[in-house]
Amino acid sequence: MNFSDAERAAMEQALQLARRGVRGANPLVGAVILDPSGDVLATGFHRGAGTAHAEADALASAAAAGIDVDGATMVVTLEPCNHTGRTGPCSQAILRSGIARVVYAAADTNEDAAGGAAALTAGGVEAGGGLLADESRKLNSRWAAAMAGRRPFVTVKTAQTLDGRTAAADGTSQWITSPEARADAQDLRRRVDAVLAGTGTIQADNPRLTARNPDGSTAEKQPLRAVMGHTPVPAEAAVRGTDGRFVQIRTHDPAVVLAELYAHGVRHVMVEGGGTVAGAFLRAGLADELVAYTAPALLGAGTAAFAGLGIASMARIQRWRWDPAGGGSAVPVGPDLRLHLEPIPFEEPE
Amino acid sequence: MNFSDAERAAMEQALQLARRGVRGANPLVGAVILDPSGDVLATGFHRGAGTAHAEADALASAAAAGIDVDGATMVVTLEPCNHTGRTGPCSQAILRSGIARVVYAAADTNEDAAGGAAALTAGGVEAGGGLLADESRKLNSRWAAAMAGRRPFVTVKTAQTLDGRTAAADGTSQWITSPEARADAQDLRRRVDAVLAGTGTIQADNPRLTARNPDGSTAEKQPLRAVMGHTPVPAEAAVRGTDGRFVQIRTHDPAVVLAELYAHGVRHVMVEGGGTVAGAFLRAGLADELVAYTAPALLGAGTAAFAGLGIASMARIQRWRWDPAGGGSAVPVGPDLRLHLEPIPFEEPE
Repeated sequence: MNFSDAERAAMEQALQLARRGVRGANPLVGAVILDPSGDVLATGFHRGAGTAHAEADALASAAAAGIDVDGATMVVTLEPCNHTGRTGPCSQAILRSGIARVVYAAADTNEDAAGGAAALTAGGVEAGGGLLADESRKLNSRWAAAMAGRRPFVTVKTAQTLDGRTAAADGTSQWITSPEARADAQDLRRRVDAVLAGTGTIQADNPRLTARNPDGSTAEKQPLRAVMGHTPVPAEAAVRGTDGRFVQIRTHDPAVVLAELYAHGVRHVMVEGGGTVAGAFLRAGLADELVAYTAPALLGAGTAAFAGLGIASMARIQRWRWDPAGGGSAVPVGPDLRLHLEPIPFEEPE
Repeated sequence: MNFSDAERAAMEQALQLARRGVRGANPLVGAVILDPSGDVLATGFHRGAGTAHAEADALASAAAAGIDVDGATMVVTLEPCNHTGRTGPCSQAILRSGIARVVYAAADTNEDAAGGAAALTAGGVEAGGGLLADESRKLNSRWAAAMAGRRPFVTVKTAQTLDGRTAAADGTSQWITSPEARADAQDLRRRVDAVLAGTGTIQADNPRLTARNPDGSTAEKQPLRAVMGHTPVPAEAAVRGTDGRFVQIRTHDPAVVLAELYAHGVRHVMVEGGGTVAGAFLRAGLADELVAYTAPALLGAGTAAFAGLGIASMARIQRWRWDPAGGGSAVPVGPDLRLHLEPIPFEEPE
């Protein structure tokens, strides 16, 4: 398939739009609808699991503005999906819309969702991919690697002081970060399929690990509450709850935890602590993003946010990079700062 | 003195301009020049020690634009100075300019610089203060407290990982932060009167502590190189240099160090490490700002950026707040982030 200059420009815009989304179990995707002369009619992007896909978002945006997309071209950074997940298949929505042509960047390698281009072609829509495919894949390389490895995407979350402490020397930690930061973290919990903590955190803090709404009520969609480690979780521990959505995985190996969570249907897990559990995922290279709520506060001693990385010397330092997705790499949340990082490949020193 | 609505609005603008400056031995000051009908002719602010004062900056800006300020009103957040320091007295520059009226917020309490309003009045310029004086004083309260206490303003600088480490477990630390961040830190060194390190840092890293230009050459203005602690500094230590601008202060008490530095004429000192020295200043409440160059990297172990704060429990956590002065509270510098904080008063728990 040949692509016009307007389609190339639209794909670049769609890639920028994609970056406004939220990393997680679903990929970052952006979409731009062009009229036959190459002018932009509408745009959309995917805001995260459970929300409209980018194509549906762009179509809704056009509909809301009363714009007719009959005969238009949909430019989208990922092959439209062909399955009914939490939202309907995009291929069908595109066929219904009157869109005449679909240009996508990367093919969808998720076996559940693939086949969208074929469905479009079968429905009489011209569909072809490969335009800026590398750029699109780069956006979602960690997500693709997780899916290819049949494991959940892993978000590691900390709530720490500027000097990297998650609790004071006596174990107290309420509250390092502000109510605003804790509410923001609840937004993350409502978005993931599972939250994970170690038995040490369960013993020390007895957290519920439920997802709550901004008003404090229990959210409708609850993540699976997973605890890793061998220490028995007491019968009266809050994390057990009463809804049956609790599991203890008796291992210290993050890979084993992820395999079991994947088997439970979990595609996105948030590691909530403590530092030993977070460190185990980081050391194993199994952390796909890092969200560090950082309070402008100092403790000078106490629990470290990351332990057991096994790094003795600078040559082995773990380098990450700031990730602008999900709202930005350094975003004020109340009096705190939400820092967002993605890993860069670790290069073994020569 | 009565103030017009235009003057009040101009003072609010001047306060905003002031915040664009750099904290340090000189206060944050902004200035706005109004024509007799209350329209803004020019604005200025103070960019830090050794650069033009806000009034001079505004006058230069007007001159550069070919704007006549004869008969105009100068609205400035601090009483114009009356002494020749690194720059000439603002009172004289204002008298020469033809400005007819000067409205300031706070009086200058620096005994060396005070008397500007009287000089202006004697020169035939209407001058009066007190407009939004509290807001202006709040901008510079730490600076004013330092000067009132006859001690230097203290900047504590760290170069750390996201998890608050300044060196790996084996003591290696080159380089946690990027060349860009280290060049940015050299900008700070060129601005201060002294840099301070502990004897431990001297032994571990043998730093020169000189100020370098962006091209790596030695800067013309060199800060005093101060070392605190009892361990003798070896004759061959790089910090001694050959220019005589080296001093060792044999104490662990930050207050004693500051008194001695003040006696040496130091009005702004940057504490460069290590964590024990930084912690001593923080614990004593003698840190006026914190600049944390933070690399998106993790070590999981090693030297803590702040030690010996004496905090055992959350009730004693040191709360700071992000400081937007000096370019911003979270500024990307190369691949790193420069975080800028100012203290908020510590409230003793009941």
